Amino acid sequence: MPTIAETRLRVRYAETDNMGVVHHANYLIWMEAGRVDLCRAYGFDYRDMENDGIYLAVAESHCRYRSPARFDDEVVVKTWIETANTRVVTFNYEIRMADSDRRLATGSTRHVFVSPAMRPRHLPEKYYAMFGIGAPAEAEAEA
Amino acid sequence: MPTIAETRLRVRYAETDNMGVVHHANYLIWMEAGRVDLCRAYGFDYRDMENDGIYLAVAESHCRYRSPARFDDEVVVKTWIETANTRVVTFNYEIRMADSDRRLATGSTRHVFVSPAMRPRHLPEKYYAMFGIGAPAEAEAEA
Amino acid sequence: MPTIAETRLRVRYAETDNMGVVHHANYLIWMEAGRVDLCRAYGFDYRDMENDGIYLAVAESHCRYRSPARFDDEVVVKTWIETANTRVVTFNYEIRMADSDRRLATGSTRHVFVSPAMRPRHLPEKYYAMFGIGAPAEAEAEA
Amino acid sequence: MPTIAETRLRVRYAETDNMGVVHHANYLIWMEAGRVDLCRAYGFDYRDMENDGIYLAVAESHCRYRSPARFDDEVVVKTWIETANTRVVTFNYEIRMADSDRRLATGSTRHVFVSPAMRPRHLPEKYYAMFGIGAPAEAEAEA
Repeated sequence: MPTIAETRLRVRYAETDNMGVVHHANYLIWMEAGRVDLCRAYGFDYRDMENDGIYLAVAESHCRYRSPARFDDEVVVKTWIETANTRVVTFNYEIRMADSDRRLATGSTRHVFVSPAMRPRHLPEKYYAMFGIGAPAEAEAEA
Repeated sequence: MPTIAETRLRVRYAETDNMGVVHHANYLIWMEAGRVDLCRAYGFDYRDMENDGIYLAVAESHCRYRSPARFDDEVVVKTWIETANTRVVTFNYEIRMADSDRRLATGSTRHVFVSPAMRPRHLPEKYYAMFGIGAPAEAEAEA
Repeated sequence: MPTIAETRLRVRYAETDNMGVVHHANYLIWMEAGRVDLCRAYGFDYRDMENDGIYLAVAESHCRYRSPARFDDEVVVKTWIETANTRVVTFNYEIRMADSDRRLATGSTRHVFVSPAMRPRHLPEKYYAMFGIGAPAEAEAEA
Repeated sequence: MPTIAETRLRVRYAETDNMGVVHHANYLIWMEAGRVDLCRAYGFDYRDMENDGIYLAVAESHCRYRSPARFDDEVVVKTWIETANTRVVTFNYEIRMADSDRRLATGSTRHVFVSPAMRPRHLPEKYYAMFGIGAPAEAEAEA
């Protein structure tokens, strides 16, 4: 089973700012791309889940910016699940330069499963594997 | 009846790029803010129109960038309707510095009225005034 | 002396996403607008500080998303300094609906003063007041 | 010699809007990614050109939106140079779905070569090949 997704992307000009580096809000967007790729790595399609009426509302985000990225840099976003139960999932991220060990940022986001009307809901059992939730019994216990 | 809306905004840091000026894609976003304010000036709420099942899909955009704007500049977007019928509406824009005559950009966007499913539809009569469409007869003829 | 800045803004269409609410990355951009307004409230111009060779590099961001904002909502960002010394400053934020008590988000950002080459530096004394740093002696002690 | 660059990208969640489709301003950002890839295809690095003091200021943009793209769609941006001389270059773009012939948008951008201070300047001879400008004599004549 995959446990870490790697998303490779190039810094776009529009992502830079007056300081000559990537504007910090873009790291949240890159983390989101990482989440989608992690779903794909697990054989699920984030889009299908939304069509199923399950949205991952962001409840919290945290990011530590360690070193600036610049235009046209190739970066890698590593994404993995820290914890998950049938109501809440937390993803962790590490963003590095693609061609060196230089870390650009580390962060995490916490999400609540919601309905299209933005009401909290339980994750259906068929998605347990995707979020690394074990047996239903275990999931119930955590919920 | 108002015919021109004036939207005042300040350049955000996130809107600048590596060149030290406003990234050109943001002008389209400012024009959009201008359209919403023009609707408001006409006494309509763009949001209500969407709740009514009428979306303004962008079919074409054009922008001439005349002078760069920089972080924290205060700018004014002037928005007016160039032509409209019950299927299509074209907006014009002029973007200037707030404290001088310096023009930053001029542009236009052409829109098609669509349903939530993105299918072309006719504008209902109650919105004619908003888009400066005269008598229904006249509108029919143009359509 | 002002201690809290209030920034009023309207949700732009471009800031919404497929879920019909404001995309979470935009809250960081709104907080940034709040910081600039806080500087202005203190009688300083963030832009002048950059021209002086002092940049506020974002070292950390944290946001709790409490209730979704939607297109055209009018929101208020309250910004204040939590702690500051001559090397590091932490801002706090509360984002609310303009016409109700509904809180949308709370958050904080931590910044390091850097040179244009992105090297950490001490804040010059003339900016102490802006960041609520008291007497130079006190600032030294904290640094 | 390459004459068309193909840039493949996936629609990010942050690029969608309340209408459930890609917000139209993002097409300009995708075109920019196409330009950078076209330079790379010619063996040049857009970043090096900037370090050389040559910026491509956007003077005009035009886009026709033909069919909406949605979250997670894989799209291809085709980029080529329409005309170029030592002062001005015009790029054309076609944006399609990656897995079908469906065209999403077509467009063009016109750029002026400028100095870091945003003053118009002539393109140095070593970059002629990159922009498909023939012999210096020919370039002079066009300028």
